[in-house]
Amino acid sequence: MKKIITGVLLASSFLVSAAEPEFTAQQLKQVAELRTNASNSDLSYQLLESLTTEIGPRLPGTENDKKAVAWAQEKFQALGFDKVWLEEATFPEWRRFSESGKILTPSEQTLHLTALGHSVSTPKDGITAEVILFETLDELIAAPANSLKGKIAYINYRMNRDIDGNGYGPAVRARSTGSVEAAKKGAIGYMMRSVSTAHHRFAHTGGSHYKDGVTKIPNVTIANPDADQIARLIALGKNVTVNINVQNEDRGQGTGFNVIGQFNGTQNPEQYVLIGGHLDSWDLGTGALDDGAGVALTMAAAKHISEIKRPKRSIRVVLFAAEELGLWGAKAYFKQHAKELDNIVAAAESDFGADVVYGFESNVSAQSLPVVRAIAKQLAPLNVQYIAKNTANGGPDLIPLKNATSAPIFDLHQDGTDYFDYHHTADDTLDKVDPEKLKQNTAAYAVFAFMAADARTTIKPKPAK
Amino acid sequence: MKKIITGVLLASSFLVSAAEPEFTAQQLKQVAELRTNASNSDLSYQLLESLTTEIGPRLPGTENDKKAVAWAQEKFQALGFDKVWLEEATFPEWRRFSESGKILTPSEQTLHLTALGHSVSTPKDGITAEVILFETLDELIAAPANSLKGKIAYINYRMNRDIDGNGYGPAVRARSTGSVEAAKKGAIGYMMRSVSTAHHRFAHTGGSHYKDGVTKIPNVTIANPDADQIARLIALGKNVTVNINVQNEDRGQGTGFNVIGQFNGTQNPEQYVLIGGHLDSWDLGTGALDDGAGVALTMAAAKHISEIKRPKRSIRVVLFAAEELGLWGAKAYFKQHAKELDNIVAAAESDFGADVVYGFESNVSAQSLPVVRAIAKQLAPLNVQYIAKNTANGGPDLIPLKNATSAPIFDLHQDGTDYFDYHHTADDTLDKVDPEKLKQNTAAYAVFAFMAADARTTIKPKPAK
Repeated sequence: MKKIITGVLLASSFLVSAAEPEFTAQQLKQVAELRTNASNSDLSYQLLESLTTEIGPRLPGTENDKKAVAWAQEKFQALGFDKVWLEEATFPEWRRFSESGKILTPSEQTLHLTALGHSVSTPKDGITAEVILFETLDELIAAPANSLKGKIAYINYRMNRDIDGNGYGPAVRARSTGSVEAAKKGAIGYMMRSVSTAHHRFAHTGGSHYKDGVTKIPNVTIANPDADQIARLIALGKNVTVNINVQNEDRGQGTGFNVIGQFNGTQNPEQYVLIGGHLDSWDLGTGALDDGAGVALTMAAAKHISEIKRPKRSIRVVLFAAEELGLWGAKAYFKQHAKELDNIVAAAESDFGADVVYGFESNVSAQSLPVVRAIAKQLAPLNVQYIAKNTANGGPDLIPLKNATSAPIFDLHQDGTDYFDYHHTADDTLDKVDPEKLKQNTAAYAVFAFMAADARTTIKPKPAK
Repeated sequence: MKKIITGVLLASSFLVSAAEPEFTAQQLKQVAELRTNASNSDLSYQLLESLTTEIGPRLPGTENDKKAVAWAQEKFQALGFDKVWLEEATFPEWRRFSESGKILTPSEQTLHLTALGHSVSTPKDGITAEVILFETLDELIAAPANSLKGKIAYINYRMNRDIDGNGYGPAVRARSTGSVEAAKKGAIGYMMRSVSTAHHRFAHTGGSHYKDGVTKIPNVTIANPDADQIARLIALGKNVTVNINVQNEDRGQGTGFNVIGQFNGTQNPEQYVLIGGHLDSWDLGTGALDDGAGVALTMAAAKHISEIKRPKRSIRVVLFAAEELGLWGAKAYFKQHAKELDNIVAAAESDFGADVVYGFESNVSAQSLPVVRAIAKQLAPLNVQYIAKNTANGGPDLIPLKNATSAPIFDLHQDGTDYFDYHHTADDTLDKVDPEKLKQNTAAYAVFAFMAADARTTIKPKPAK
């Protein structure tokens, strides 16, 4: 009897499920209102302007990094978040003090360079040596043993421009391990063309790694016009000698904080939609695109939602610490919350600049696709296309989550055509942000987060492999 | 009788003049061939690539400046100019060694700055002081006496963008005399928004002057994004303190050379069309737009003409020395040739980048306008419009000529919409030049110079005032 009753109940609830829409007419009206409000508000731009102006660059471990944590706490509170808290994260601290470069032969001229993260310093007067050019990292790896003794190895590989930034990965290979490969062949310095699409004299910084047992050599990138110049000189058969001078410091373990703000859900507050960005930035620019925009627009999106109502599930904005030095905030967050990761009903990080969102993609259980499609339908008026592949990657700070479990992850794909003109350079400043595009972006996050938090059924991840 | 005969001769020559065209069908065929050849040749780009790559920056008095003189001599000779020679010019030598800046309060961040030409150095650790903002130079001039004691005066004026660069003049006022006005009020440093339309973090250098009897204070510009940042901070009511550190040196009198190449005329070789640019550049970039392009395209234009034929009058390409430090090469040239300035039948300098020529304008005697119109007709196929105002200014290096005499001056107006994105910054490099636009530009100079040199009647200046 019991069994039969259960069977009947199940069948009945299945029928309801098939018939009952994910969102009521009332909810859809709220979504429309939210979309309009967020599309017309400059709150995200105001937050971004405040962060990049009053704090500026936010390298993990610096005074500015600490100021940014205080800034985020205050802003969350001022915006009326129900709960605001910090969670500690440690990371290997590194500081840049000065850097300069020159081409010495065949003709003296400035070389616009920057040290990669964790690069060792040169001696006080720099290192001076001939440049040996390789078009790719693989060419360098194929060079004979000891063939770079006393030389500076140079990789000339140029990243390509595309809307989804697909040129970044192949180019970053030379950034991650190039100096190790160069040192193995006897080089005293490593230099590479910036992983950048810019036609301006800004060198691009970023993470890089040394390897135990291999000599640590200074590790720098040069701006595209400077890279062109060196390539032309070498093509003319000239002996190109440069001086590289970078003064940096590894400072051991530093401590920072993920800053978290939450609007509590009304029915299942322990369940939450996770949106956010990373609060830290490189030191060269003011981190407007990377990732001030992600910070500002997710804070604003949550605020806009709260002005409509508190959804069934919580909206949690996580501003991760020390992303640039290796996702240290994200590693700490997902470790600390390891036992409750299935409370995350949807997760999306904004960390790709401030241009418009053009595509919406999920990575969820098949049974959750009706909710996804219902959300996509409400994003369409913002000119966001539904990408039905269901293979979303999430942002970089979601990598530790994906490594830990199968999670319901979303991509709000942004137009990244120009992103690598500014990314990780001194030129990443507020004037590169179009306030109108930022509004669209904020509205897309607001609609997505609201609907994922207020859907009738809870979004589920794909089954664990 | 004699009188009557003269009268008859005059009338007759006037009639001939009205009836006979300035150019024969054969000459116009040569013009068409020249226009096609120059439009299809990459000679000017090759020259520009060679100059900016093999020499690079060319600050007057530096080793690179000397190398550029040797480069130009060799290129003139290799191109088969009939006569190649140097003429000495002296100038006040100045050198930049290092520069850096920081905003210290309210939050530490890099300040992208550069010293203006002839700026004095700061002490070794720089100067640190509060910034006092003025929107215009006139506001600074109106400030009370001693009101800037111990402060750094800052002018926030932004130049506007336009095709003819008309925003430059008003903005340059603050560059020329701003530091003098600031020092008069007790300021210890002078800082201004770059005279630039760029949205990139490049500060713009340029000429500036001190005044006897007024304290010489460090004199710098900051990049537009940095200027925006300081303006925002001050608008927020923050006390903005900066550190400026520039190390430079005035080195007394230096010596350089105008480099001159000529194709000799077949009928009146002493008469000549003067085209050219300036060979020197600021030290920050490689002087591709300012003024490598002018150098390269006028050399190439003359070469293209010589491949058609030697015109009646000579074609003289003058590459002026030390323009950036105050037109010193031009002053020397027109002084040395003071007694024979009426040999110049047409003069035009290219010193406004590498974008297309859109307009052609003369400044000549009314009796020479038929020749001008005939030239304009042959420029039309290059999309160059005739501007009939007859008030051409010529380039900066023609100022000493205009000061000395009434001369037949021409403007080949270039599109300068983007010129001030790069002008006098580190970002003035070869990649900013569009090879196709440079071809059009070269062809326009070739057609103009050929026709002015080969016209039936000699072009005359307006009567001296």
